[in-house]
Amino acid sequence: MAEVSTWTVTGMTCGHCVASVTEELSEIPGVESVDVVLDSGAVTVTSATPLQRAAVEEAVAEAGYTLV
Amino acid sequence: MAEVSTWTVTGMTCGHCVASVTEELSEIPGVESVDVVLDSGAVTVTSATPLQRAAVEEAVAEAGYTLV
Repeated sequence: MAEVSTWTVTGMTCGHCVASVTEELSEIPGVESVDVVLDSGAVTVTSATPLQRAAVEEAVAEAGYTLV
Repeated sequence: MAEVSTWTVTGMTCGHCVASVTEELSEIPGVESVDVVLDSGAVTVTSATPLQRAAVEEAVAEAGYTLV
């Protein structure tokens, strides 16, 4: 059964930002899909196992943004 | 003697946008350097020969933005 978690990311302003965040989050082991809503900063991640907040925070930071 | 021209581009919101515009403009034959100021949308291009507005407009559009 896949796990679905929702996070909020600040600082994204355009589709390039969305692509960067999506790419970094997709590289976390076990992540199956990433859905980003630019306007709200809502990021929904589906993963095989529950995600650690630290892993999500690191990926978001790697993309250049901030996890709320 | 290099030619320096300044243009205005609208729609850029972040460093990724700046990178896209810089990349596309740099591909115009004769272009030697591109300097983009995100806040104002000012784009300064140095080129070996004078640039045609149509070429600049096409490159900016290719990046996904609009030349004023």
